[in-house]
Amino acid sequence: MGEVGIVKAESFVFAKKSDRLKLDSGEFFGPIKVTYETYGKLSDKRDNAILLLHALSGDHHAAGIYSVQDRKPGWWDNFVGPGKGLDTNKYFIICSNFLGGCMGSTGPSSINPQTSKPYAMSFPNITVSDMVRTEKAVLDHLGISKLRAVIGGSLGGMQALEWTLLYPEVVRSAIVIAATSRMSTQAIAFDAVGRNAITSDPGWNGGNYYGSKGPLRGLAIARMVGHITYLSSTSMRRKFGRVLLERTTEQEFMDDEFEVESYLSYQGQSFVERFDANSYLYITKAMDHYDISERFGSLNEAMRRVRSKFLVVSFTSDWLFTPYQSMDIVKALMNNDKEVSYCNIETDYGHDAFLLEVDSLAQLVRGFLEHV
Amino acid sequence: MGEVGIVKAESFVFAKKSDRLKLDSGEFFGPIKVTYETYGKLSDKRDNAILLLHALSGDHHAAGIYSVQDRKPGWWDNFVGPGKGLDTNKYFIICSNFLGGCMGSTGPSSINPQTSKPYAMSFPNITVSDMVRTEKAVLDHLGISKLRAVIGGSLGGMQALEWTLLYPEVVRSAIVIAATSRMSTQAIAFDAVGRNAITSDPGWNGGNYYGSKGPLRGLAIARMVGHITYLSSTSMRRKFGRVLLERTTEQEFMDDEFEVESYLSYQGQSFVERFDANSYLYITKAMDHYDISERFGSLNEAMRRVRSKFLVVSFTSDWLFTPYQSMDIVKALMNNDKEVSYCNIETDYGHDAFLLEVDSLAQLVRGFLEHV
Repeated sequence: MGEVGIVKAESFVFAKKSDRLKLDSGEFFGPIKVTYETYGKLSDKRDNAILLLHALSGDHHAAGIYSVQDRKPGWWDNFVGPGKGLDTNKYFIICSNFLGGCMGSTGPSSINPQTSKPYAMSFPNITVSDMVRTEKAVLDHLGISKLRAVIGGSLGGMQALEWTLLYPEVVRSAIVIAATSRMSTQAIAFDAVGRNAITSDPGWNGGNYYGSKGPLRGLAIARMVGHITYLSSTSMRRKFGRVLLERTTEQEFMDDEFEVESYLSYQGQSFVERFDANSYLYITKAMDHYDISERFGSLNEAMRRVRSKFLVVSFTSDWLFTPYQSMDIVKALMNNDKEVSYCNIETDYGHDAFLLEVDSLAQLVRGFLEHV
Repeated sequence: MGEVGIVKAESFVFAKKSDRLKLDSGEFFGPIKVTYETYGKLSDKRDNAILLLHALSGDHHAAGIYSVQDRKPGWWDNFVGPGKGLDTNKYFIICSNFLGGCMGSTGPSSINPQTSKPYAMSFPNITVSDMVRTEKAVLDHLGISKLRAVIGGSLGGMQALEWTLLYPEVVRSAIVIAATSRMSTQAIAFDAVGRNAITSDPGWNGGNYYGSKGPLRGLAIARMVGHITYLSSTSMRRKFGRVLLERTTEQEFMDDEFEVESYLSYQGQSFVERFDANSYLYITKAMDHYDISERFGSLNEAMRRVRSKFLVVSFTSDWLFTPYQSMDIVKALMNNDKEVSYCNIETDYGHDAFLLEVDSLAQLVRGFLEHV
């Protein structure tokens, strides 16, 4: 298997004037900048495009490196490339950053051209459907009218699912990994804790922290909570057990003592260096409110409009987006006589398995894509 | 079934001078005030005493009311009383507050007589064994040398287990409910999040917040995280689903929107009104570090010293202190040919089931106590 090599992020701006994007909230919003990357080559027939969608803390940089010195390839580099799960010898992969984020597309930290200040909490309320609408603009920008597939894990999988509902004619197939048609009460509760940690941090200041330090501790705590839900109890035990850190002479009583504590602290710290707290608020709200059943009356009713072939994948130890939630999607598709393949991959990795069980996923995805 | 009626908390002070308590940390600590309540009558033979131990956020007020106007009975009032699970017609129940808490026994918020200021973070590092040592002082104070049983749920169950190791001769039987001989990595991780939320709150101020507002937001967030782990995903779904609060005109974007959010906010808010943040830090540290296997080489080796008859109870949906963790205790007891009854109660209530599955528990406990 090869590598995609050096890649470059691309950006464009749409919804600049009269063509502002109508959001689910009713607001017409723009301008919207979207950043994306592509890997592989678009065929002459323009029929080999696959849209890849990222999760909460991901971005458009799914594969490759930015320079020969770059040691950190994209977040799904082991899955996207020549001969890999998403084979760039065959497919033209587009990975789009979503609306509301902080990694290159318009979000709360972007400058509102009307005020020349960051939107902060004046950023409009967005939904998963709104994210998908901006991703549709990427296709329009690239002149692509049909997708061989949409694929994503976690929130990326929710977007993939949403693509089949908003643009059924565009999407020949959907690969929905570790996702759900609506989040569980428990998952909403964890998000609520994270949001409270952010908004309770005096550094948050009602969202107006740009130019200052911001709610670094609050965001770190939100990430720590999130991170626990991405792992399984078993994988945490295997990885850290109850091992204690070496005690230093300056150790204070409330310092981290267990390895798992310092791991979480590290996760929290490194997250605040790259992520915007307001984006975290907006994106988790969008996730929490996503509810296909509520919108269409029932999941069965929603799935009736689907015209894509589906591959649904869940992970046995995923307790955030459980196999049962994937099975609900599968059942609703089957009830409507839609073509669907389903696999519940046996793993201890929990929700994060979509980033880790790459070999199993690659086999499934390659096989599926050959028949769509 | 009757009620225990009006009760009165009792306190005494020990470890005043040369008889200071030697803690696991090596420190000799005192004076120590302990608060407790008793229900029922001690028999002339002094052979019907049962020691009841509370969980993290509980206290010595397990049953009864403080006055005829008192509308809020003790936390296990439906389990403790005439004809109830712990039958006060038969047994003399002692519920002791533990060291390090904030509900009437010496803890970080107590005044250090040497400085006339609250201990705050100068309070010594305490362990579950240290809690049990102070509870032994209650028995000495009451002139009771043998216990018919020790009983507790969650951290109360950990203390009950510890009683059988520290004072095997004293404890005829132990009822260990929803407990563990060592917390899982995941449970430690959740505690770490809670502690970080507290210590990140500027109101914490290195623990020196007495006389001011204190880390109210941080403690509320710690409680919110904790509360999610006390419930099961199923019970949260049944209780709140994805129901939204009625939207008010003043609603701001980041206000609670889902019922589960406002429930957690309420839990957090009401907790900070009654609980001390530093106690939360010390007690969760004590829980996280409790590890019988590490102390004795193995759980088998530890259980060899036990001389009590055991009833171990777990709950199928308890993912904080899982049935597997209870089964580990049971297996270690059986490996040592100790008498042990075990019941894994089928329930959706999660860890909190020890407070809710009172009918099932009462049947088990009454039956068990008749034969010890």
